[in-house]
Amino acid sequence: MTIRVTVWNENVHETHNKIVGDLYPDGIHGAIADALNKADGIAATTATLQEPEHGVTQERLDNTDVLIWWGHAAHGDVDDAVVARVTEAVWSGMGFIALHSAHFAKPFKRLMGSACNLTWREAGERERLWVTSRNHPIAAGLPDHFELENEEMYGEPFGVPEPLETVFISWFQGGEVFRSGLTYKRGAGNVFYFRPGHETYPTYFDSNVQRVIENAVRWAHNPAMRDPAPTDAPNVPVEQALEPIEARGPSLHADGEEGFK
Amino acid sequence: MTIRVTVWNENVHETHNKIVGDLYPDGIHGAIADALNKADGIAATTATLQEPEHGVTQERLDNTDVLIWWGHAAHGDVDDAVVARVTEAVWSGMGFIALHSAHFAKPFKRLMGSACNLTWREAGERERLWVTSRNHPIAAGLPDHFELENEEMYGEPFGVPEPLETVFISWFQGGEVFRSGLTYKRGAGNVFYFRPGHETYPTYFDSNVQRVIENAVRWAHNPAMRDPAPTDAPNVPVEQALEPIEARGPSLHADGEEGFK
Amino acid sequence: MTIRVTVWNENVHETHNKIVGDLYPDGIHGAIADALNKADGIAATTATLQEPEHGVTQERLDNTDVLIWWGHAAHGDVDDAVVARVTEAVWSGMGFIALHSAHFAKPFKRLMGSACNLTWREAGERERLWVTSRNHPIAAGLPDHFELENEEMYGEPFGVPEPLETVFISWFQGGEVFRSGLTYKRGAGNVFYFRPGHETYPTYFDSNVQRVIENAVRWAHNPAMRDPAPTDAPNVPVEQALEPIEARGPSLHADGEEGFK
Amino acid sequence: MTIRVTVWNENVHETHNKIVGDLYPDGIHGAIADALNKADGIAATTATLQEPEHGVTQERLDNTDVLIWWGHAAHGDVDDAVVARVTEAVWSGMGFIALHSAHFAKPFKRLMGSACNLTWREAGERERLWVTSRNHPIAAGLPDHFELENEEMYGEPFGVPEPLETVFISWFQGGEVFRSGLTYKRGAGNVFYFRPGHETYPTYFDSNVQRVIENAVRWAHNPAMRDPAPTDAPNVPVEQALEPIEARGPSLHADGEEGFK
Repeated sequence: MTIRVTVWNENVHETHNKIVGDLYPDGIHGAIADALNKADGIAATTATLQEPEHGVTQERLDNTDVLIWWGHAAHGDVDDAVVARVTEAVWSGMGFIALHSAHFAKPFKRLMGSACNLTWREAGERERLWVTSRNHPIAAGLPDHFELENEEMYGEPFGVPEPLETVFISWFQGGEVFRSGLTYKRGAGNVFYFRPGHETYPTYFDSNVQRVIENAVRWAHNPAMRDPAPTDAPNVPVEQALEPIEARGPSLHADGEEGFK
Repeated sequence: MTIRVTVWNENVHETHNKIVGDLYPDGIHGAIADALNKADGIAATTATLQEPEHGVTQERLDNTDVLIWWGHAAHGDVDDAVVARVTEAVWSGMGFIALHSAHFAKPFKRLMGSACNLTWREAGERERLWVTSRNHPIAAGLPDHFELENEEMYGEPFGVPEPLETVFISWFQGGEVFRSGLTYKRGAGNVFYFRPGHETYPTYFDSNVQRVIENAVRWAHNPAMRDPAPTDAPNVPVEQALEPIEARGPSLHADGEEGFK
Repeated sequence: MTIRVTVWNENVHETHNKIVGDLYPDGIHGAIADALNKADGIAATTATLQEPEHGVTQERLDNTDVLIWWGHAAHGDVDDAVVARVTEAVWSGMGFIALHSAHFAKPFKRLMGSACNLTWREAGERERLWVTSRNHPIAAGLPDHFELENEEMYGEPFGVPEPLETVFISWFQGGEVFRSGLTYKRGAGNVFYFRPGHETYPTYFDSNVQRVIENAVRWAHNPAMRDPAPTDAPNVPVEQALEPIEARGPSLHADGEEGFK
Repeated sequence: MTIRVTVWNENVHETHNKIVGDLYPDGIHGAIADALNKADGIAATTATLQEPEHGVTQERLDNTDVLIWWGHAAHGDVDDAVVARVTEAVWSGMGFIALHSAHFAKPFKRLMGSACNLTWREAGERERLWVTSRNHPIAAGLPDHFELENEEMYGEPFGVPEPLETVFISWFQGGEVFRSGLTYKRGAGNVFYFRPGHETYPTYFDSNVQRVIENAVRWAHNPAMRDPAPTDAPNVPVEQALEPIEARGPSLHADGEEGFK
């Protein structure tokens, strides 16, 4: 079974900043999709902010197993209707991977329920990522640690909920640490946050980073049929109760009536 | 130190439905606040949907240690600006307790990042709550289980993230189960969901239920000074790095510049 | 890749009690292995208490991807050296599934670090298991709930640590609830506890139960190479530090010396 | 209510190594107890390996609210009966704080159910601890980070289960990171691991370290009455079932008979 990945990018720095444009001539989305398409059993396409509906129509989401999200300068330009659509797709079972500055992306903040804030410094310093969960599938094939010679620093405290699992923690040359790989589940959807990927460095061409993203795609992919109604709260009528009961006491709702939302 | 509690209620059923109005002549909010005000070291007041800004101005939140929320018929009428204000107050350290049908309240859904859906049946059936975390502070003084002879049924799957701790699980006469007491942390704020409390039953006069709510208030209260900037993502300039580093490589931001949000 | 499963059973009731012997003529281990061997990509064999080293030599564990454990009457007869060997194999990456009364099995208690106690009643009452984690791989292909008409009751509080995920919760006819499907990770090994399976009922012939066990085997299987030294605490000599440092201050150990255990 | 703390130390380095003896003339246990006894509402005493029953008789544990444990060279000398006694006391509600090299102490390993291994280097390098859980009670009164100029390095992966909460993560000068403050619950008992405290450095005289230990004592203290039977698995006879049921099907146990352990 092929895993269908959509790599979403706001695609702003690439088109407005010569450094980023030269580094990622096909965009960050293009670089990530290219790497994924070399992996067995993964078919990656891209979508960007500038496309109609930001390229993520309902039909597109229905045919996406894992959505990867990169954003930074234009978080505020992402339409709230698209954010709601993405969020519901996750609840229905679509995997979601937020990269780097997508910690402040609307869909990620919505899925976390928290501020997702942190400290930061853009100094091209050394980052070293340590695996903290032995043999975790997202760390498959990686050494105990790997380095990125030039990266932006993100520092704790990171304003996210306690994760299911902490997979990576970063050491920074300037003295900070950061939980760089975190897993969550929201509804039927698996969610992974991965820290590296500042736009002025060639991070997404790094083989270890590519390995993590490929692993994360396989981990986030839920082969179960998508939940067709991930927000429904169905009434169970008294006469269909699994154990025989009789209605007692005062009621607000007529039997079988739809609830409030 | 007195814990300052605000009990928020949409206060709709009480004023529109005779059964509920007769049962809770001071409103559900009034019944809960009355019970809390009998406890040592707790001072509870109330706020309702109908008040200006729904009674939860910024000043009110600044002076609230724990906010209790009950809503059902009018979730959609809660102003989004108020929801954002409440959510930020939680991130800054205010405790938040969502009761019963507040599983679908906007602030709770926003804090969870998930659909918060469930199944339900209004049949006045028996509910029995089991303590699943031995000696948890929220279960202090309670027996291993307690019963509510007439309650609405809520059934699994409950569309919430894995909690920090599961404190109660309910058994229902009609054959369902439900995770009825769940703890979370969002930013600096403690969050508790507690299931019982259908408006047509005298649940909030039950002494065990009152005990749980009082315990939850004490548990959710964070005595630390509120975080004044719970969404800030401060830049750490290179020259203030804790370990001496020099900026290297290309940069997007000028040193000390504010980041994107 | 075939997943190699060893189904371990104390095999005492089957040989000492006519009811159990008639119900499981090939033993509970035989029934479980038979069902697994009908699944694609799984090869199950069995081991019992009565075999030398209880059938779980180091070589056997080295060639087991997932170990399933059933015990009840003879927990105390399991050799502590075998328990230590099983525990280390889990830490190195072997999956472990504890069934029913194995809540009190030595390896499970050792992996949990807790008492693993509960309440119980043997009355052949109805149990209904509810899925609490939507689309969890261990619930793949299952309906929202399924029933076992005759089962032993296990009741909360269940003396286990908070799990990574709660996959099933049981409703019992006599009024109790129980967290019946719980996931954990210990070292590199995935651990699953599954409640049903009292020896006097045909539970392991139930197709839903068989489905859960098959799913759990696939979930628990970690395809990564087994950690060859899961208890090692290696010294990192100063001259091999990833960042250049010089030893400072007083030392207890000579450089490169092995640590205390 | 005064919190009764017992500070346990193997007390070996202090008596065998001049550097450690000079640094901690009253032992590490003495230094920690002295600091705690300056705090309001805490009464700390000490116990050491060399005392009869290592100073932790059942009576002592019955009168200890929080047990702090330091060990390194003599883990193997701790009697298994004492380990079982300590573990059961935790399950019954006693708080337990493991310090530094107690990651390999028998009671801690028993409570974790995992190998608790790590990498290490004794070079007197700089450690910087970052708070990762905003306003956590164990971080009360601390800045966002604090430094220890000379410490032993502990590196990831740390072989412990996913914690309830990660409170501190350490940065090391030589390039490693470590989860330095982790919370757990085992039975009714709260457990905290705190990393710093190598015996050749004056770590336990550091005011931030003392603050963490005092905070952890308050957090770990469970004011509920101790569970008198933390390993019991009581039978619930059919005629005492909360819902009326009749025994059906074959049984292994006579009604009310004690279960297997």
